[in-house]
Parts: sequence; structure tokens; C-alpha cells
Amino acid sequence: MADLQRIAVLGAGSWGTTFAKVLADAGREVTLWARRPEVAEEIRDAHTNSAYLTGVRLPERLTATTDPAAALAGADAVVLAVPSQSLRANLAGWRELLPPGAPLVSLAKGVELGTLKRMSEVVAEVAGVPDEQVVVVSGPNLAREIAQEQPSAAVVACADHDRAVLVQRACSSRYFRPYTNTDVVGCELGGACKNVIALSCGMAVGLGFGTNTVATLITRGLAEMARLGSKLGADPLTFAGLAGVGDLVATCTSALSRNRTFGERLGRGETVAQAQRAAGGQVAEGVMSCSSIRALAGGLGVDMPITDAMYRVCHEGADPRRLGAELLGRQRKHEWS
Amino acid sequence: MADLQRIAVLGAGSWGTTFAKVLADAGREVTLWARRPEVAEEIRDAHTNSAYLTGVRLPERLTATTDPAAALAGADAVVLAVPSQSLRANLAGWRELLPPGAPLVSLAKGVELGTLKRMSEVVAEVAGVPDEQVVVVSGPNLAREIAQEQPSAAVVACADHDRAVLVQRACSSRYFRPYTNTDVVGCELGGACKNVIALSCGMAVGLGFGTNTVATLITRGLAEMARLGSKLGADPLTFAGLAGVGDLVATCTSALSRNRTFGERLGRGETVAQAQRAAGGQVAEGVMSCSSIRALAGGLGVDMPITDAMYRVCHEGADPRRLGAELLGRQRKHEWS
Repeated sequence: MADLQRIAVLGAGSWGTTFAKVLADAGREVTLWARRPEVAEEIRDAHTNSAYLTGVRLPERLTATTDPAAALAGADAVVLAVPSQSLRANLAGWRELLPPGAPLVSLAKGVELGTLKRMSEVVAEVAGVPDEQVVVVSGPNLAREIAQEQPSAAVVACADHDRAVLVQRACSSRYFRPYTNTDVVGCELGGACKNVIALSCGMAVGLGFGTNTVATLITRGLAEMARLGSKLGADPLTFAGLAGVGDLVATCTSALSRNRTFGERLGRGETVAQAQRAAGGQVAEGVMSCSSIRALAGGLGVDMPITDAMYRVCHEGADPRRLGAELLGRQRKHEWS
Repeated sequence: MADLQRIAVLGAGSWGTTFAKVLADAGREVTLWARRPEVAEEIRDAHTNSAYLTGVRLPERLTATTDPAAALAGADAVVLAVPSQSLRANLAGWRELLPPGAPLVSLAKGVELGTLKRMSEVVAEVAGVPDEQVVVVSGPNLAREIAQEQPSAAVVACADHDRAVLVQRACSSRYFRPYTNTDVVGCELGGACKNVIALSCGMAVGLGFGTNTVATLITRGLAEMARLGSKLGADPLTFAGLAGVGDLVATCTSALSRNRTFGERLGRGETVAQAQRAAGGQVAEGVMSCSSIRALAGGLGVDMPITDAMYRVCHEGADPRRLGAELLGRQRKHEWS
């Protein structure tokens, strides 16, 4: 397969814009598609995206457009950087414009409500391409820190190892170090589940608990996502890696994490509606993911007590203060029984 | 085996005092041995230990003494809560006083300099007892938070499962939830290695790096401790649990962690001697552990790049600023190769 030189990035939020910068800094020709004209114009003319990445200077070679056809024309690879629950609708609109054979790289993290599909499954289905044409990027990747060129590592996962290597090469820069992996299922589940666990960590902090509690939730959260992954054929090692524990720790311990902040508000006694208003109308990804992941786990008979607790708090009005008592109240036992 | 009712805790630092409180709150009769008379007196009379746990009220039933014979007389179990590098010398002095057959519970985390032995090995050797009489307690256990009765989980490890269950029962309280495990090697290595990784995380923060870098160091640190553990016969699952990732995350992300704070000073350009002066003359555990763990790994042919980097910074005067460049500069590859 040929080197990936021209790359379209569809979605100019903080992670899409940051990943476009990484690709441009790795020497690629990158066109970023933005929904809003003022965002595209600012990226193109002022080399900033003040709505999502204040204070970050974008590379001059990075261009932007609101025309998906212009972004996709002649692209060697297509990066999908739209929110997980709107990926299907967006991609359906772009379907006819996708360059045949180009790797489709998903940055979205979540499990689709209703269909209970992972994002790469949605991409393959809507784009009508084989699974091995879809690539997933995940890892401990808070966008703002990477945009500031702090050294970060990531995982590029694809069932086709050669295609993973091509994407790895396309995004390797001075400050961004991607590793390849062929376990797409594990990488995607790690990325989806961690938002729910981050919500629970925020909730614990909002309730006044400290580092031991957060570390325990991270550990038990890792165990429950690995149980789900193992049932779906993921490699357990993936959860011990950057797309598992790495992404989980970054999201659960950062003050920059939207899911953690949202959970903190719930822990302090706000309702989901109040927390949503405080977050500018947006609901945290974990609030939606806990529904779809709980349904997925339920259908497979996998026990996910933290995800279940988050579902009850977010969707059934359960009291977060019962969380600690419940987690500690379970029967004393061997760590892995 | 009979229930553990009378328990001696030897060492009245922050973790020894906190664990004594946990045992007392679990309904046990606990005598704490303190080296300094004023500490023993304060615990006995004022029910506080202001040198190590300011603001914490200790249970009335918890008593203290400077006489090890008085603490050990009639004890059903003995908890060893002295620093790892002085455990051998202390225990040699107590050897003749140990009640025959009593479980010896080690709270110390480290690998002994020179002998390269784990703490439970030192205990079995010096006390002249079989391995299965030694119990290890580990997990995400920042002492101050547990002393404040925040919900926390821990691992009680012993080669003899029944003995682990006895100790588990003795320390189960409203806010402290112990799980059993028979993998003593894994639990101890997790506890020893995490101090070195916490040092590296602090160093990264001192150099100005953020959450992605810390999460990456935690992930790669977990991988290197699991490699060492696997070579020494530990169960890989242990590193995915509370004594592995749990303890690691708590120590690496808490502002209360001495190792992390020490590393931050090194990252800001202070020498080990300067950081030691700032820490009241104490050197962080990780500074010593990186020597013994590096020697242990070297003898077994195990690659531990973060531990090695910490050794070079702490003992060979290497420049921490080279750390990021070096970690990113390694060859692009598959995550687990």
C-alpha cells in the first residue's frame, strides 16, 4: 500500500483539530472539514480554532473547508472526528464522496445507542467497506495537551496490521508516538467504557472522596471493561495497555475531562439536567454510553457493577450517596472471584 | 486457625498508625509499638498521633507502648510497619519476642538493597518462619484518606489462603474492604515498583508535562513491573488489580505521595541532596528501590526502561530533561513487542 500523503479530517472539534495538527506536523497535507463556516475560515486564515483550542497555533499547511467534497477529493485516508452518537448520520451524508480503498480512521469513542455497535462497526456498515479498512486511534490523549506538543503515546488499531502501520507512519511526530495493535475490539471498548468510569470517579470526588477511592474505581472499572471485552473476543492485554489503563487513567484523573467534571456535579447533588445546563447544554458522553454499554453487557450476561450504578444514577434517579456504601457493602471475597 | 483478637502493630508512622486504627475499628485489641516515648504517650493518652496524622482522632481502645515485649505478649498476629530498608534490623531485635505461629503481616513495600529480597522473604528469613506464615497487605492505600475513614479497598496476600482470610476478617471495617489473594510475589513487587514509577511521574510533572504523559508513564510502568513479576513467578492478573494498577494509580496521581513530590523537585532541577533536604532529610523510597529493582531486573535480563531512567537520574546524575525525549525516541513499534 502507498504512503498516506493527503488526508481529510472530518470534524473540527478539539480532538479532530488536534489530530489534524499532528498529521500536518508529521508532514502530511491535511484538509479539515468544519461544520461552521466561521470555524473553517479561522483555521484557514488565522491558523487558530478559538472555539475549541484557545491559545493553540495551528500549522500553516493545515487548511479547512465546510465542503466535504473538497476535503475528501483525492484523499489517501479519511479521519472521522465527529461525536459517536452522530457518526452514523454524518457518514451517511459523506458516503458517496469517500475515496475507494482509503483507510477510514475513527477517533469516536462510544457504543451506539439502539444498535449497540462499536464505532468501527458503524463505519464499516455505513461506508460499505470491509472491517480491515477501518482503523481506530485511541490512548491517553487529552487533546489540549497534545495540541501543546506534550509528549504523548497512542494506539493505532486495525485488523490489517499493514494498514495500521501506514496510519502509524502518517501520524508519527516529534511529540506523538503511536503504537500499532490488531485488537480493534479491545481498543474501542476501552475508549467507550472509560467515559463511564470517569463519570463515576468524578461522582466520588463530588461526594468528597479522595485518591484511594478514585484509584479503586479505576481498578474495578478496568476489571469490568476487561470482562466485557473478553466476552466480545478482545485481547486482555489491550486493557493493560495505552488504550485500556492509559486512556482510563488520563480521563479519570484529569481536570480537563468533561466526563469527570460532569460526574463531579452529580456527586455534589445536581441532577443530570442541571449538570447538562452547566456544561453548556451538552450531556457527557458517559451518560449516553452507560446505557448502551449496560445493554450490551446485559445481553451477554457480563457483570458491570460500576456501569450499572452510573446508569441508575443518570437514568433512574438513584442517589449517588449510596454508591460508596454499595461498592463497599458487597460480600468480602477473593480479588478475582 | 483461631480468630485473631489481640494484634501488635510494630511501627507508629502514618501507615502503621492508620492500620492499627482500622484493626481497632474492626473490633480487635490493638497495641501499637512506637520508637519514640512521646509518640506512644500521645497515642495512649490523647488518642492522636500529631507527628504523622494531624487532625485524626484515634480509637480509645487503641493503646501504645515503647516496649516491644509488652506489645507482642500474647499477640495472635504481628503487623510489621517499619520502613523497608530497616525492617531486617528491627525484626532481628524482636525475633525472640514473636509469639510462635502468629501470622506476621508486612506493610513494608520495597526490595532490600544488597540482598535484593522482597520484604516477605526478609521476614521469613529473619523470623525463621515458613513463607506461608507471612502475610502482605497492599493496595491503593494512602494512609491519611483511610485514617479519615474514606472507603478504600486493599489486598491481603498469603500463600496460605486460610491465613489470608483470617487477616482479611481482622481488618474488615465499615470503610476498609480487603480482598484476599495468594500471589504474594505479585502483590509485593507491585508495591515496590510503584514507588519508582511515582518518582518518574513526579519528575514529568516537575518538567511541565501533563496528564497524558503521567498516564503513559503509569501504563508503561505497569508493563515493566508485570514483566519483572512474570519472570519471578507472579500471576499477571495481580498487576491488573488493587495491588498493581490500583496502588500505582493512587501513588502516581496523589499530591500526598512522597515519591511523587520528591520526583517533582528533581524535575524542577533540584539535585537528590536538595530534594532530600526539602523532605526533612528523608530520601523517597523510590530513590532506594530503583537501585535494588534495577539490580534484580538486570540479573534476570528483564528490560525496565523507566526504572533504569530513574536510576540514572538519582544515582548517576543524568538530566531529567532527557527523559521525555528518550521515552519518545525509542523505535516505533507494536504495543507489546
